[in-house]
Amino acid sequence: MTVAFLGLGTMGAAMAANVARAGFRLVMWNRTPGRAPELLDLGASEATTPAEAVRSGDVAIVCVSDTPDVEAVLFGPSGAAEGAAAGTVIVDMSTISPSATRGFAARLAAKGVTLLDAPVSGGSEGARNGTLTIFVGGDAAALDRVRPVLAAMGTTITHCGPSGAGQAVKAVNQVIIAGAYLGVAEGLVLAMKAGLDPNLAVAALSGGAAQSWVLANRSERMIANEYPLGFRTALHLKDLRIALDLATELGAELPVTRLAAGLEEELVAGGHGDEDVSNLARAIRSRSGLPG
Amino acid sequence: MTVAFLGLGTMGAAMAANVARAGFRLVMWNRTPGRAPELLDLGASEATTPAEAVRSGDVAIVCVSDTPDVEAVLFGPSGAAEGAAAGTVIVDMSTISPSATRGFAARLAAKGVTLLDAPVSGGSEGARNGTLTIFVGGDAAALDRVRPVLAAMGTTITHCGPSGAGQAVKAVNQVIIAGAYLGVAEGLVLAMKAGLDPNLAVAALSGGAAQSWVLANRSERMIANEYPLGFRTALHLKDLRIALDLATELGAELPVTRLAAGLEEELVAGGHGDEDVSNLARAIRSRSGLPG
Repeated sequence: MTVAFLGLGTMGAAMAANVARAGFRLVMWNRTPGRAPELLDLGASEATTPAEAVRSGDVAIVCVSDTPDVEAVLFGPSGAAEGAAAGTVIVDMSTISPSATRGFAARLAAKGVTLLDAPVSGGSEGARNGTLTIFVGGDAAALDRVRPVLAAMGTTITHCGPSGAGQAVKAVNQVIIAGAYLGVAEGLVLAMKAGLDPNLAVAALSGGAAQSWVLANRSERMIANEYPLGFRTALHLKDLRIALDLATELGAELPVTRLAAGLEEELVAGGHGDEDVSNLARAIRSRSGLPG
Repeated sequence: MTVAFLGLGTMGAAMAANVARAGFRLVMWNRTPGRAPELLDLGASEATTPAEAVRSGDVAIVCVSDTPDVEAVLFGPSGAAEGAAAGTVIVDMSTISPSATRGFAARLAAKGVTLLDAPVSGGSEGARNGTLTIFVGGDAAALDRVRPVLAAMGTTITHCGPSGAGQAVKAVNQVIIAGAYLGVAEGLVLAMKAGLDPNLAVAALSGGAAQSWVLANRSERMIANEYPLGFRTALHLKDLRIALDLATELGAELPVTRLAAGLEEELVAGGHGDEDVSNLARAIRSRSGLPG
């Protein structure tokens, strides 16, 4: 099976490498060419347009940044839609708007092409190690056809429902972690202001109702006020905006998510958008008179 | 060793029973007498005032609701301070103000009596099963003397620092879980509004960065909109007020904690204060047009 891989950023290049290592033939394309030379060593060939890549693939993977990028890759000049024969399955692993996804899927369906949305969580580490969690929306039979390719990139693949459902579950994920990050950030700032040993406090709290992945894996960064990646604040903000747009469409009111998005806007404006999103602690620290 | 146990509410009665079962002699007192007849079957005797109970005990445990209750039990007419000989250790397992705790400890120290603050987490289930997490502030040598008594009630006992440090760590705990509850509540409301299967979404998210005790143990209640205890919203609100007072004293700014306290005030005003605090989802649901 030949896989067309469109988008070779930090995530995409690492995911494509795992697809190649799993034995699939790879035809790759990136807006800026020559970005992932290591994939040539794995036997991949490079196409000059999305249409050309998709024409030679049995399945296409899209992994870019935001809704307009996906639209350009799919429907722009020499886009994937141009190269896709009826029966092709395109898997969009970017994190974008669920309602835009449904629109893209409908446009492709008119050509007999199936779009699956399949955003991921697990960050650059999960991408490198092939241990991503993948949330899939769209036709279940199409998912079954591409599942071996997805299995090269992730360990948990969940069919979440019809087109857009994968994106919606990803939005839910980003909302839940916004609350988790801010709760831990506020707790640790309070601990430090109170003169407690914050590491001792984390250890004391970890066995109870405060336990979380964030407390276990990100409190050290918040205490040190150093935020190596991880997952970029600018990208989490993009995802929260998707979640808040979805909430607005649906009439849901999410006050903590709004609060988190506002703090992340401040962080991005202050030049901290490329740090790990645990730097939400920076915003709480600086409001509380700690070095932020 | 004889233990004077002051305060036999839901938590106190269950904790006192574990102390009696561990082989300690128990002299008990409660503001309303006759509240825990099952303790008489375990060999406990009843005192008519805190002073009388403490006079016959080697160590005293206080387990009441709020700062004024502790003050009354300690320093009111026939209070514990009146009955306590020099060298007595009093362990306050209520959740109250850290700064008030330091004041109480200083007043008792003037009489040669040591006060430890030792608030707990783990709820009524932890109290019944003797699996509480106990956060201790105050003199470490005094903690060593009473540790066997605390070990009858809890499985994790952490010395957090000087007087008030146990209360401060408890406040940190309540702040962290406020963020966790609200993040999960907003995520699940978004999932339900988006027409997702919320249980499927929880399963899909549980392996990643959204993982938490709250997601694992409280999402089912939020989805069903039914909130059996658990830990009462009215008590969590009391604890958040303690945390916010502490934050104000220290110059810390905790926006999610403030938001959670406001929502809990609404819930209490709406007659939902005796439900489990996972009913924060009720507040998000009703703002979002779901049955709340």
